[in-house]
Amino acid sequence: MKTEVNENALIASLAASLPRSPLQLNNLQESDAEFITLPGSIILALTTDTIAEEIASGLYADPWLAGWMAVMANFSDLAAVGADPLGILLAETIPPLFPVEARMKLQKGIREACVACASYVLGGDTNAGDALQITGTAVGCITDGRPLTRIGIHPGDLLFTTGRLGIGNAFAAVGLMGDRSTLPDYRPSARLRQGRRLRSLAAACMDTSDGALATLDQLARLNGVGFTLASNWEDLLDPACRELAPALGIPPWVFLAGPHGEFELFFTLPAGTPHDRLDELSSQIEGCAFVGRATEVAGIHLPGIGRFSPDDLALIRNLETPRRGEVSRYLQNLLEIGHRAEVGHRIDKSMTDTGPCSSILHTDEQAKG
Amino acid sequence: MKTEVNENALIASLAASLPRSPLQLNNLQESDAEFITLPGSIILALTTDTIAEEIASGLYADPWLAGWMAVMANFSDLAAVGADPLGILLAETIPPLFPVEARMKLQKGIREACVACASYVLGGDTNAGDALQITGTAVGCITDGRPLTRIGIHPGDLLFTTGRLGIGNAFAAVGLMGDRSTLPDYRPSARLRQGRRLRSLAAACMDTSDGALATLDQLARLNGVGFTLASNWEDLLDPACRELAPALGIPPWVFLAGPHGEFELFFTLPAGTPHDRLDELSSQIEGCAFVGRATEVAGIHLPGIGRFSPDDLALIRNLETPRRGEVSRYLQNLLEIGHRAEVGHRIDKSMTDTGPCSSILHTDEQAKG
Repeated sequence: MKTEVNENALIASLAASLPRSPLQLNNLQESDAEFITLPGSIILALTTDTIAEEIASGLYADPWLAGWMAVMANFSDLAAVGADPLGILLAETIPPLFPVEARMKLQKGIREACVACASYVLGGDTNAGDALQITGTAVGCITDGRPLTRIGIHPGDLLFTTGRLGIGNAFAAVGLMGDRSTLPDYRPSARLRQGRRLRSLAAACMDTSDGALATLDQLARLNGVGFTLASNWEDLLDPACRELAPALGIPPWVFLAGPHGEFELFFTLPAGTPHDRLDELSSQIEGCAFVGRATEVAGIHLPGIGRFSPDDLALIRNLETPRRGEVSRYLQNLLEIGHRAEVGHRIDKSMTDTGPCSSILHTDEQAKG
Repeated sequence: MKTEVNENALIASLAASLPRSPLQLNNLQESDAEFITLPGSIILALTTDTIAEEIASGLYADPWLAGWMAVMANFSDLAAVGADPLGILLAETIPPLFPVEARMKLQKGIREACVACASYVLGGDTNAGDALQITGTAVGCITDGRPLTRIGIHPGDLLFTTGRLGIGNAFAAVGLMGDRSTLPDYRPSARLRQGRRLRSLAAACMDTSDGALATLDQLARLNGVGFTLASNWEDLLDPACRELAPALGIPPWVFLAGPHGEFELFFTLPAGTPHDRLDELSSQIEGCAFVGRATEVAGIHLPGIGRFSPDDLALIRNLETPRRGEVSRYLQNLLEIGHRAEVGHRIDKSMTDTGPCSSILHTDEQAKG
């Protein structure tokens, strides 16, 4: 069996018939934003992202959050390529009876996200439609060198994150199946400062907008590698996940596997990165933590859970994003795939186990020693 | 009575709380695209436009047309500022059961519009949603001088179009109330070549994406002028309008007043433009035709119909865009405003009649003489 990731297949089929601009630097899927070369060695970084499904599912019931996310999701893509944001254009589809108060909250979310990113709304378009949705298109530029891409990971390379993982899926789990009065605080910030620094430090980078596991799987596929996470990967989870896991009956790894991201950056350094470079990293990149290593073996190994094969990961990514009332079926499907990974892992453990990676929330002591 | 244009008021209220980028050259509403200055005197032109209402109303029942328009509407804004297109990003919301064949037609429309504009899809985003809609964001650049704006029109200035008018509203009239098998051919082309030339020739420019009358009203408001059209303005209408007018029982001026545009460019030259400049214009700008003159008196004078005051024009622009089955009510409202304009005009004719403008589909002989 060879399972395709539906989203990748869709993007490939949409792009197949479209000629590419000779000024476009990146290939399909190889970066979080599109790159266009302008005269004077300026590289323009462009990305577009719509907030629609999260509103339709009831997850972003708060219009403030819808506005905030429409801005942050796009600036997060600029962060992942190390670009300086020039601003964002917003196309809003607003239902005819959308309350004025909700509209003001939406605008407040947009404004506060722009202020947080020290950037601007440059223009927009408004339309009437049955369902609220917002499409942002962010524009950034790089005037001094190459952008970050998702490409350049080799077996043995070190994997890092700019922050704790799982809060996006914790928020979704409570938002769609729990008591909304206990919603954890979900307010992702585009890691623009970190992205700018990483441009001269990291080999590859991608934001976790679709959840941590999907991001690792995409990086793995693009680079022909796998990943093994540090043995104490649970320490990387946001404290809210560890609190919620027993209350909701959700095993911790599910907070990595769900599709609702935390908008951190995953980035890699070459296996032989010298100590001073790792020190530089931990001093310059706020919130930075060691996650694991790239492996020759495909798939993703979560110590204590098992090895997810590329097929398992494709199946997880192809699960339909649940709406309110559909979460238990989604979870059941996810847990079945997890069980298969565990069983599969027992059989071929010797092939995939590359040993533990010791230190978390610091740079890798093993790598130094 | 002072009637606001709802769309202008909405945009002003949305923008009111948003700080503007210090790199942004244009003020609100003053141009068809947003301008950002980059190092090396490069000006970036950015615009975003969603195709949603025309799909929901049933007007763009053909997915090919929806794709074509998502591209053309955006590149038309770049044409109106004289920018060279670098490409477009597309965010598509697709219903879960959208047929594969329809999807292929949509992609074909996108591809063919890009080819027609010698430009490219740079990237995109796909989402699931109940209703098909497509948001395009076009990016262009100007490397040698100033962009075209909507500003710079004075009383006496000469008004031109890049082509015949009214086909958008003719298409909408048949599409929403007539026999769809008799639909006129509607396939607007962004006037990119003309826009590039006009950058060194014209004083002001705006595309007719919202229909000819709304475009003139917007230019009039922004510049504190009015317009009087040439006495034989009916000759400017697309032949399809003149055929359809009696069959549908629609007076010809309604093809200028409806909200579904033809995506031509309206542009102006100063009153005292010398003969050789007008000759240059008619030889360099394909399809170019004289439309009328700017006036000190506010409003728009259509010889043979009457003078539409700014209030009349705001009321016309505020009419809700009709869906299928709602067109007769829309027309009734429009004709009532037209009747009032005619009556009002009889009373203050002496104030507004600036005499006939003779030649159409050539440069203005009067202006030369």
